[in-house]
Amino acid sequence: MSNIFGKVFKISTYGESHGKAIGVVIDGCPTGIEINEKDIQSELNRRKPGQSKITTQRKESDSVEVLSGVFNGKTTGSPISLYIKNKDQKSSDYDHITTVFRPSHADYTYHKKYENRDFRGGGRSSARETANWVAAGAIAKKILDDLGLEINAYVSRVGKLEMNTHYKKLNLKNTETNIVRCPDKNFANKFIEIIDEAKKNRDTVGGVISCIISGCPVGIGEPIFGKLHAELGKAMLSINAVKGFEYGSGFKGSEMYGSEHNDQFEIKEDKIKTKSNHSGGIQGGISNGEDIYFNVAFKPVSTIMKDQQSVDSENKKVTVKGKGRHDPCVVPRAVPIVEAMAANVLVDLYLQSKK
Amino acid sequence: MSNIFGKVFKISTYGESHGKAIGVVIDGCPTGIEINEKDIQSELNRRKPGQSKITTQRKESDSVEVLSGVFNGKTTGSPISLYIKNKDQKSSDYDHITTVFRPSHADYTYHKKYENRDFRGGGRSSARETANWVAAGAIAKKILDDLGLEINAYVSRVGKLEMNTHYKKLNLKNTETNIVRCPDKNFANKFIEIIDEAKKNRDTVGGVISCIISGCPVGIGEPIFGKLHAELGKAMLSINAVKGFEYGSGFKGSEMYGSEHNDQFEIKEDKIKTKSNHSGGIQGGISNGEDIYFNVAFKPVSTIMKDQQSVDSENKKVTVKGKGRHDPCVVPRAVPIVEAMAANVLVDLYLQSKK
Amino acid sequence: MSNIFGKVFKISTYGESHGKAIGVVIDGCPTGIEINEKDIQSELNRRKPGQSKITTQRKESDSVEVLSGVFNGKTTGSPISLYIKNKDQKSSDYDHITTVFRPSHADYTYHKKYENRDFRGGGRSSARETANWVAAGAIAKKILDDLGLEINAYVSRVGKLEMNTHYKKLNLKNTETNIVRCPDKNFANKFIEIIDEAKKNRDTVGGVISCIISGCPVGIGEPIFGKLHAELGKAMLSINAVKGFEYGSGFKGSEMYGSEHNDQFEIKEDKIKTKSNHSGGIQGGISNGEDIYFNVAFKPVSTIMKDQQSVDSENKKVTVKGKGRHDPCVVPRAVPIVEAMAANVLVDLYLQSKK
Amino acid sequence: MSNIFGKVFKISTYGESHGKAIGVVIDGCPTGIEINEKDIQSELNRRKPGQSKITTQRKESDSVEVLSGVFNGKTTGSPISLYIKNKDQKSSDYDHITTVFRPSHADYTYHKKYENRDFRGGGRSSARETANWVAAGAIAKKILDDLGLEINAYVSRVGKLEMNTHYKKLNLKNTETNIVRCPDKNFANKFIEIIDEAKKNRDTVGGVISCIISGCPVGIGEPIFGKLHAELGKAMLSINAVKGFEYGSGFKGSEMYGSEHNDQFEIKEDKIKTKSNHSGGIQGGISNGEDIYFNVAFKPVSTIMKDQQSVDSENKKVTVKGKGRHDPCVVPRAVPIVEAMAANVLVDLYLQSKK
Repeated sequence: MSNIFGKVFKISTYGESHGKAIGVVIDGCPTGIEINEKDIQSELNRRKPGQSKITTQRKESDSVEVLSGVFNGKTTGSPISLYIKNKDQKSSDYDHITTVFRPSHADYTYHKKYENRDFRGGGRSSARETANWVAAGAIAKKILDDLGLEINAYVSRVGKLEMNTHYKKLNLKNTETNIVRCPDKNFANKFIEIIDEAKKNRDTVGGVISCIISGCPVGIGEPIFGKLHAELGKAMLSINAVKGFEYGSGFKGSEMYGSEHNDQFEIKEDKIKTKSNHSGGIQGGISNGEDIYFNVAFKPVSTIMKDQQSVDSENKKVTVKGKGRHDPCVVPRAVPIVEAMAANVLVDLYLQSKK
Repeated sequence: MSNIFGKVFKISTYGESHGKAIGVVIDGCPTGIEINEKDIQSELNRRKPGQSKITTQRKESDSVEVLSGVFNGKTTGSPISLYIKNKDQKSSDYDHITTVFRPSHADYTYHKKYENRDFRGGGRSSARETANWVAAGAIAKKILDDLGLEINAYVSRVGKLEMNTHYKKLNLKNTETNIVRCPDKNFANKFIEIIDEAKKNRDTVGGVISCIISGCPVGIGEPIFGKLHAELGKAMLSINAVKGFEYGSGFKGSEMYGSEHNDQFEIKEDKIKTKSNHSGGIQGGISNGEDIYFNVAFKPVSTIMKDQQSVDSENKKVTVKGKGRHDPCVVPRAVPIVEAMAANVLVDLYLQSKK
Repeated sequence: MSNIFGKVFKISTYGESHGKAIGVVIDGCPTGIEINEKDIQSELNRRKPGQSKITTQRKESDSVEVLSGVFNGKTTGSPISLYIKNKDQKSSDYDHITTVFRPSHADYTYHKKYENRDFRGGGRSSARETANWVAAGAIAKKILDDLGLEINAYVSRVGKLEMNTHYKKLNLKNTETNIVRCPDKNFANKFIEIIDEAKKNRDTVGGVISCIISGCPVGIGEPIFGKLHAELGKAMLSINAVKGFEYGSGFKGSEMYGSEHNDQFEIKEDKIKTKSNHSGGIQGGISNGEDIYFNVAFKPVSTIMKDQQSVDSENKKVTVKGKGRHDPCVVPRAVPIVEAMAANVLVDLYLQSKK
Repeated sequence: MSNIFGKVFKISTYGESHGKAIGVVIDGCPTGIEINEKDIQSELNRRKPGQSKITTQRKESDSVEVLSGVFNGKTTGSPISLYIKNKDQKSSDYDHITTVFRPSHADYTYHKKYENRDFRGGGRSSARETANWVAAGAIAKKILDDLGLEINAYVSRVGKLEMNTHYKKLNLKNTETNIVRCPDKNFANKFIEIIDEAKKNRDTVGGVISCIISGCPVGIGEPIFGKLHAELGKAMLSINAVKGFEYGSGFKGSEMYGSEHNDQFEIKEDKIKTKSNHSGGIQGGISNGEDIYFNVAFKPVSTIMKDQQSVDSENKKVTVKGKGRHDPCVVPRAVPIVEAMAANVLVDLYLQSKK
């Protein structure tokens, strides 16, 4: 396995969905950063289950404890260990899948690769892991705050409905005002309806998260194999259920001509700026000072409340019963995850750029 | 900078577009692999400039020389150094951009990040670097051959025209029969027309490459931060001009319901297979034995033959003249690059899985 | 900081001497290894403080808890989190050194490098960290057991008294029969006397640990920069208070002629063996199947019960009072640390060799 | 294999003793460093064979060529590729050892580990590789120069004769005034005699190199697993023929009491200094501003001009004839290698400390 992320700001994670605890150790955080358990907790609360009617009803307090690396309220340069105890585990919910491979889950591939598999709640493959990323990301955000860098993600598609309003026309402060995390109230309501409908149908539905990074200084990103957008892409594709990533003009850019797509330079208030921003704030893998923006596509959650055909580890046909407590749509809770992973990437590349 | 790719099969590259030479050192190639300079050369020839009327007319023989790591025709486990001399450099072509930032190129960001910048042909940021990746990929392909794994990429979109024929209905052996590298003759001809038209207009045009990996054994990919699709994504996003990556159902998957999207398991000829393959051959970051498929979006080449507004390093307004020898569309030559980077990723993860 | 050790069997550690807890996360442990908290605990007990009259009287139960990565008594391939709560912290013991730099400690260098420093008990620089290494090493030893590889360290010098009996004439099973961990009873008694005497004088004394690795298969070690002896050397030099490392003929080897030093090959019971073993079981950085043996030199513990001159963070002269509870000699408790770090190195290189 | 050294200033090397070329690619060198092929060459000349009567008579010009990463005489931040063509290869000299394992060489272990082995001149295991390290080190030294940091190594023992004059009583500028590289003329002459004698006897002899690093700023070294002395130790133990490493008080320190060994702090000219320096300029793995000093023990060269008993790859007894052109003692030529590896370590840790 490969459970360490980052080169300088390295996060090393552990834990299974239904084990004793999960946690993350951050190696490489600079000294002198103010850390408050409350700040980490408030990010975790945005991600935690049971937060609204459109998320899973499983309850996890996701209380974080800082075990090391902080002294007198500030980081010391030593590893920061963040620890989250598991609580609301109904492992018996999983007795029916001990040897069964749930469709589009990681049961089958983990079984083949590791043999001795903790099947309870998906074990290590569960999205519970992303709580670790959000906890680490809360510290990364602290570092970015000091640079004036801001990260705002929001839901821009649920199922077949896309909100394609340009991000500059949205008030990103409104994202947290509704349970689906869409800054446009009308779209938010429609998104909630679609999710509700899917839930009623014992089904799940996919969606897209858009993310805007503003205030990024020029010079972040390490060519050739540490390009800012490639690291962001890898980070996003590491999130459970993600199927695609595009930045700047993205897939639409492949339909364009160079003369439309090129971002011509101009001088604005004595600074070099680009007139358009199809580049998405990144040129040659390095930030150019413009807004960075990207989209992340999420498939529908694999656990549905309908019966499905499958097989077990004895190669026998079985029916997987639809039961348990699960999210009908992953994107509302994934907004803080996208932000956290963007923060982890940016801090890592920022620290690399200081060498 | 970050010029090393891979954890076990590590490729370390160097070289500027108009320097003395470019090259790649492969550390971690297993011993006993048969290596033939001709095999590497034939992959390089698929990528090299000047190969057809729809590519740049710049001539580079791109002759590769093996400097180390091979003895009696086989690898020894020692680093393999592949060396490619630069030949057709018209550095004087770049005199007009010494201090000028070409729109949507990396001139500005390199200048800000590194100050002392080799501007000739884009220096280190040039796509010439990808010759190194193709050379290394030729060796990676040798290793994958022995596993029965096959990688086939092809052009599936140029500008606004998309070929959305399912890959199973295409004969991928036909890809190399035409200069645009599309296995469908009719689409190939239309794609060539679109590129020709763009060229005539002194413009460039974007496109999409699709890639199919068949015969991949179950178990390749390292969760949590070395997932097969995340590593493929990062590799593709490292290629010059790439703006997006999606695998399996991709962005379309975000529009679907769980009940449609889930890939139910069945037994076929005593093997566990999935009925559908929206997962794109990967579950939980690990290959499941089905075909792996993904799309890569390329923006139009930034160098166009039209004059553009820009600024220089003195913050002065300038006009960038459209001149030089450049590709009107990058995708035909990028097909072997996509395959090579996929091969480099797969070998690296395959070797990781053996530990 | 750099708190991760190993390339495949990666251990990531955290914790300060007087913080809430210390711990280690192991990433890259193979699946299917039987793990028992008791086995880890018994190694920790060999290292823990308060175990005899010649160690510090500080009491720490050093109880280890396995938080993740083990299911049904066996590893799953997921990260193994080992957690040790801190208990017997008398942080008030350190009030007198808040701003004072203790001679030959890391107070001054940590202060200059990190500014915000956890001074209690040395914080991160404390040898308490080595409990993490021993815990990880207990798991590494499990893996090596299956290979038939055995690691035995013992005390071979205390202060001016050296036991230079060849290791083949010692019964290494006797090492644990006395509190100083020397397999020769007579030397053990003399070593204890020397330590007792140093303690009585409110002083400390240095020593040497020798380590023998038998049963190592041929082929472990990765040239050029992952040579077996270089990795062992780095691991040993990472242990607090270590000043030197030599393997095989060591420093004595520099006095010899090639004709004496060379290990000629012969056939013994159909196997290739060497007649002598000045190479210490390693040739070209790779194990050759002979015994591996090395020595590690430890300086006397820096905390003495005598008053010493020093300065504080305001550049003022101060007297450091001799107080607290400390080891008069580090080597008896360092024996399991040397073994653990050797095990961590060997497993890492063994797993690397499987690629 | 593991052919990459360093975390930020990464050197990636390739090449066999009798292959086409050897070389090193440096990834992570800062931009703006002045580079001159002559400076690199002059370090290589200190290491090259055939330089005096007490070295091998093999002739290699070891001419270095800079292939990339330098523009207008300065580094650009891009990888620097240094290329050295092999010239004086008498591969036929090795026909007699095609299948024979030379005593105390790496022939046997490489054969067992890699099977397909380039036996000519030891192939990849040859000390020829160290030319790459010296070339990279020449660039590292440039960076250290700007910090006011100086590295001086010299021969302090040959065979049974030790020069134990304290380094502060030596004029290190004299090291290059004699062919054995000892700053004391009398010892130099005696060392040369001992080597001459060994050569006459068709034998070889070991020795020790001491190294002094002055002007190192406080704060270099990354605890816990990147301690300055541990990284130096690993680097030195990576050099062919090295059997031991000690720093500061070293093995002698293990004989001392804490009250003698501790380095008490004092204020000198408003700076915090230590009265003694048993710590060897490093406390807790971090430089404290005092001189860093260490010793490196080299065994006698394994190739001797006498016949030796051995076996071949068919497990048959054979006699290895003493022939070829080899060094009677490795230490005179190893002085620049020790300095270069120290420089490579220091630059890497210096750059790490800037994050």
